[in-house]
Amino acid sequence: MTKIRAAIAGGTGYTAGELIRILINHPEIEISSILSTSSVGTAISTIHRDLFGETDMRFTDKLMNPDVLFLCLGHGLSREFIDSHTINEKCKIIDLGNDFRLSSNYKEREYIYGLCELNHNEIAKSSSVANPGCFATAIQLGIIPLCTNDMIKDDVHVHAVTGSTGAGKKLTDTGQFSYRTSNFSVYKPFTHQHLDEINKTVFAVSGKSPQINFVPMRGDFTRGIFTSIYTKCNYTADKIVEMYKEYYATSPFVHISEEPISLKEVINTNKCLIHIEFHNGYIHITTIIDNLIKGASGQAIQNMNLMFGLEENTGLKLKPTAF
Amino acid sequence: MTKIRAAIAGGTGYTAGELIRILINHPEIEISSILSTSSVGTAISTIHRDLFGETDMRFTDKLMNPDVLFLCLGHGLSREFIDSHTINEKCKIIDLGNDFRLSSNYKEREYIYGLCELNHNEIAKSSSVANPGCFATAIQLGIIPLCTNDMIKDDVHVHAVTGSTGAGKKLTDTGQFSYRTSNFSVYKPFTHQHLDEINKTVFAVSGKSPQINFVPMRGDFTRGIFTSIYTKCNYTADKIVEMYKEYYATSPFVHISEEPISLKEVINTNKCLIHIEFHNGYIHITTIIDNLIKGASGQAIQNMNLMFGLEENTGLKLKPTAF
Amino acid sequence: MTKIRAAIAGGTGYTAGELIRILINHPEIEISSILSTSSVGTAISTIHRDLFGETDMRFTDKLMNPDVLFLCLGHGLSREFIDSHTINEKCKIIDLGNDFRLSSNYKEREYIYGLCELNHNEIAKSSSVANPGCFATAIQLGIIPLCTNDMIKDDVHVHAVTGSTGAGKKLTDTGQFSYRTSNFSVYKPFTHQHLDEINKTVFAVSGKSPQINFVPMRGDFTRGIFTSIYTKCNYTADKIVEMYKEYYATSPFVHISEEPISLKEVINTNKCLIHIEFHNGYIHITTIIDNLIKGASGQAIQNMNLMFGLEENTGLKLKPTAF
Amino acid sequence: MTKIRAAIAGGTGYTAGELIRILINHPEIEISSILSTSSVGTAISTIHRDLFGETDMRFTDKLMNPDVLFLCLGHGLSREFIDSHTINEKCKIIDLGNDFRLSSNYKEREYIYGLCELNHNEIAKSSSVANPGCFATAIQLGIIPLCTNDMIKDDVHVHAVTGSTGAGKKLTDTGQFSYRTSNFSVYKPFTHQHLDEINKTVFAVSGKSPQINFVPMRGDFTRGIFTSIYTKCNYTADKIVEMYKEYYATSPFVHISEEPISLKEVINTNKCLIHIEFHNGYIHITTIIDNLIKGASGQAIQNMNLMFGLEENTGLKLKPTAF
Repeated sequence: MTKIRAAIAGGTGYTAGELIRILINHPEIEISSILSTSSVGTAISTIHRDLFGETDMRFTDKLMNPDVLFLCLGHGLSREFIDSHTINEKCKIIDLGNDFRLSSNYKEREYIYGLCELNHNEIAKSSSVANPGCFATAIQLGIIPLCTNDMIKDDVHVHAVTGSTGAGKKLTDTGQFSYRTSNFSVYKPFTHQHLDEINKTVFAVSGKSPQINFVPMRGDFTRGIFTSIYTKCNYTADKIVEMYKEYYATSPFVHISEEPISLKEVINTNKCLIHIEFHNGYIHITTIIDNLIKGASGQAIQNMNLMFGLEENTGLKLKPTAF
Repeated sequence: MTKIRAAIAGGTGYTAGELIRILINHPEIEISSILSTSSVGTAISTIHRDLFGETDMRFTDKLMNPDVLFLCLGHGLSREFIDSHTINEKCKIIDLGNDFRLSSNYKEREYIYGLCELNHNEIAKSSSVANPGCFATAIQLGIIPLCTNDMIKDDVHVHAVTGSTGAGKKLTDTGQFSYRTSNFSVYKPFTHQHLDEINKTVFAVSGKSPQINFVPMRGDFTRGIFTSIYTKCNYTADKIVEMYKEYYATSPFVHISEEPISLKEVINTNKCLIHIEFHNGYIHITTIIDNLIKGASGQAIQNMNLMFGLEENTGLKLKPTAF
Repeated sequence: MTKIRAAIAGGTGYTAGELIRILINHPEIEISSILSTSSVGTAISTIHRDLFGETDMRFTDKLMNPDVLFLCLGHGLSREFIDSHTINEKCKIIDLGNDFRLSSNYKEREYIYGLCELNHNEIAKSSSVANPGCFATAIQLGIIPLCTNDMIKDDVHVHAVTGSTGAGKKLTDTGQFSYRTSNFSVYKPFTHQHLDEINKTVFAVSGKSPQINFVPMRGDFTRGIFTSIYTKCNYTADKIVEMYKEYYATSPFVHISEEPISLKEVINTNKCLIHIEFHNGYIHITTIIDNLIKGASGQAIQNMNLMFGLEENTGLKLKPTAF
Repeated sequence: MTKIRAAIAGGTGYTAGELIRILINHPEIEISSILSTSSVGTAISTIHRDLFGETDMRFTDKLMNPDVLFLCLGHGLSREFIDSHTINEKCKIIDLGNDFRLSSNYKEREYIYGLCELNHNEIAKSSSVANPGCFATAIQLGIIPLCTNDMIKDDVHVHAVTGSTGAGKKLTDTGQFSYRTSNFSVYKPFTHQHLDEINKTVFAVSGKSPQINFVPMRGDFTRGIFTSIYTKCNYTADKIVEMYKEYYATSPFVHISEEPISLKEVINTNKCLIHIEFHNGYIHITTIIDNLIKGASGQAIQNMNLMFGLEENTGLKLKPTAF
């Protein structure tokens, strides 16, 4: 059987690296080209050093008519790429940037919001997907079952901590080892840009717009997002947990844990674990994902699998790092 | 002038180590004895290795009639120590455990709650102090000005992350490097024992008992507490910030930062930094302390300074680690 | 086609966890039983939390007549296990402990030293393998080509740093997060037990016994070994590098990097990267492996693949963590 | 008594920050000006955030005729600063760069090599000091007693690992948190620039030039240098250890530990700990320092104390971080 030919634009960044690491072992995929305007001709393994010995491919500026195109460009650059390249209309597009999450129509394509557990069927029928943000993924997976069942009756309180890779590869003061090691801080409290896509989803599934108070935090680790979410809740604990289990029953990646969870349980996997407790009239939900996998490249491949009619977890049974 | 003679009980633990590190350079103090039931005769520097070359003292079981006694025993063990030792009534006692924070009278002594910025004058007159918990210190310093001015009108939402030393020296699974490195988790959400002393203080200063929702988190670092606190607030930003600055105007250790703060700005110091923002009808307060210093041993020495009529910051001008 | 049935003894430890993580996705393997004397009946995912959602298996004390048995017991406990269990003579055994590395005959079995790149053919024909130590693997892969060509003419100088998982799961003072974070130390200098298996190999391939000075170091990370090795060398750089490339030409996992290497390039993979420089009459060799994979469980599966006539890298194309 | 007025040039960098942190509490010093060409007028605490609440000083471009001038400029920039500023001939100069370590005469000043334990008396009489490099300090303190007694008879083998602050504040790929966390690598093996000053000292004290093989390593921590040094040695262990103890008997900062040492025992202090073992005909020496303190700013202040006739450890009794 011929393999699906995948191209990756913006090939030197973190999410592109993760795509390559996963796709290189995906049984149905052949990577046809990895694009980079800055590094044409350079070996992939020169930039993504862990791929040394895995591939001899080099960065190119040729698109090569792929079956699927992953856009791993800076936020706001996807439109520009689409405008400046000839993309076959049969080529499926998965955008890992934020260009089409809120405004989903562009050049005769409609970009489905690629939160697989929510839009499973629409994604399967679509040719274009806007891959969700990392925080947005971790938070939405935590609250969608509540929203869907119209169970949010008050403000939603969210604190979520992310690893350093969430900020991408650009050199910054807050990305320095000497600064970030053993450090902790808050950034963009109540104003993080992912709130927009979360609010859009919440309204779409519930017709309501509860206030979501979201305090993002910078953690002292490279990978992962841990969210702590609570809101007032009068329903019985058993009923809610059961509802969550049902909601995610067919998902190969989202699991409800009866035990408290810790971040490393999902690192280097496409999984999302959710744990639920009840205290003082509040439901308290914690969720964990790997920001670069379920929060970016893994979910993009999960979307691709759905779009091509493959098993949802093809190529995504990844060995966890655990430590 | 003769120096104040200080004894430390429970000398092998983390908070005792910090006390020794600070007192050893305190200009008015002579450490008279460091007690340990398990290590009598062992050199202090065998246990607290960084003190090698600083002191030749050894652990003892003799109290030696000190002027001030620091109790660094496990929570619940201070009463037992007091019962089993002869302590001169003129000897001042500072308990770093939680024995007297809620129940403040024992054996003809009344233990003043040793949050220096709140109980400054009472501490100065007292002979016995219950040193606050680390989370409790960081959270109370963040909200007391609001409470004092009766400005809390709704639930208070608190997430706070602590370093590994907060859990003490005992070997545990969650204290293992292989587990904790690059990890993150929540523990005792809504039920942490420090809520009791926080609630007691809030009621004492405001006569009110707002619900405080507190989610403690385990961070991937050894030292420090970062709190993120918000509650509904209708007062103007300028007025509130001014009020905080006034409240802490005479404190040598608590400062209101106009810039956002990050944890390492206070590590290895007795300082508490507070930053305040306003979003969506909420006041958002972040505070940082070193859990072992302002959250334990540094504050204990600050209490001692007050009790002996010394300058509040004597011996506490510590070089920050910064990195 | 029926799958190979694998059993794992000592199932709660780190190396057993890694075996399960890899074997669970190995296309030719079915895990038949995971043994643990301490946890019979407990879900695997209770101990290895990252496997939650991946398997419903539970620890057992039944061996279930497997085709291959991995022994992940404490060093010195493999003999005891063999003595106390009935193991079919057709069952292949791979011992991850150190019981048979030096003394290779026991109960009518001869345990081949399972350094795949050295003993490829013998392993393929054997029914029993002694899996090498982690330091021993990283160091031997660095020097065997020199030894084989009789090019070691003087002392060999080795410093090698290991992650915390190398010390296993037992609670220890040096394994505590509060101790190990941002720390660094040397242990067992010149006397580490892995020197014996290294010396044995060096003599076996070269008939010589150069002095190997080995200083093991404890690093501030959980996974990986980085070795820095040098010895006097009069051969030309090009010739040596060419020789190394030839020696490892058929290995899917060992690669000679022209660029300097850093530890994370191999983490969560079965690879070993080697980099060679020449300075002041010395050849300087650096090597990196993941101590739990190429240094333990990955190599064990590589051995299994060889023993069963599978492609050497079956099930071992693992996604690197990279960050 | 009037205080000594100290100026700091290059005030925004790491070593300048450490100087300020220490000098701000030094009983004999008044910081008269902190220079920065890039940040004139900016508050010190804007750049060195941990100094918020400690000082209201601002960066300036005025030298203000100080009694002592610390040069914390990039390597090679000290001459330029001296050329372009009017420096009173009575002003003492301490250069933390490498401009005068090898070539010690410039503009009628002779810069004494400021390794306090070696050149104690010359420093006390000098007006200008070239502060040693960090690696050079840690390595020289480990071998000078051997050199002085002509006991080095063969190559000296050195591996030494440094924290990230050793690379300064400039943004680099290898300084990124996402790269460096849990990583390890070697750089400039056998060619590090500090070898020159080490070789110069060794020749100066012994008249010999043994080959020193030095492999520098990048560690996964922010502060500290750990060195592991060995060379052939036929002298008895007791004699050597006794000799080291005598050599450092009058030093307030260098101590010989009978117990093995780990890096954090000296972090945030001006100490150097040395541990010595004997194996297989080799003497094995490990040393630890804080690269920014004993390896830079602390030693600079130690030099200043000597130059002004103060107690050597004035202002340098720093609280260790320990964790």
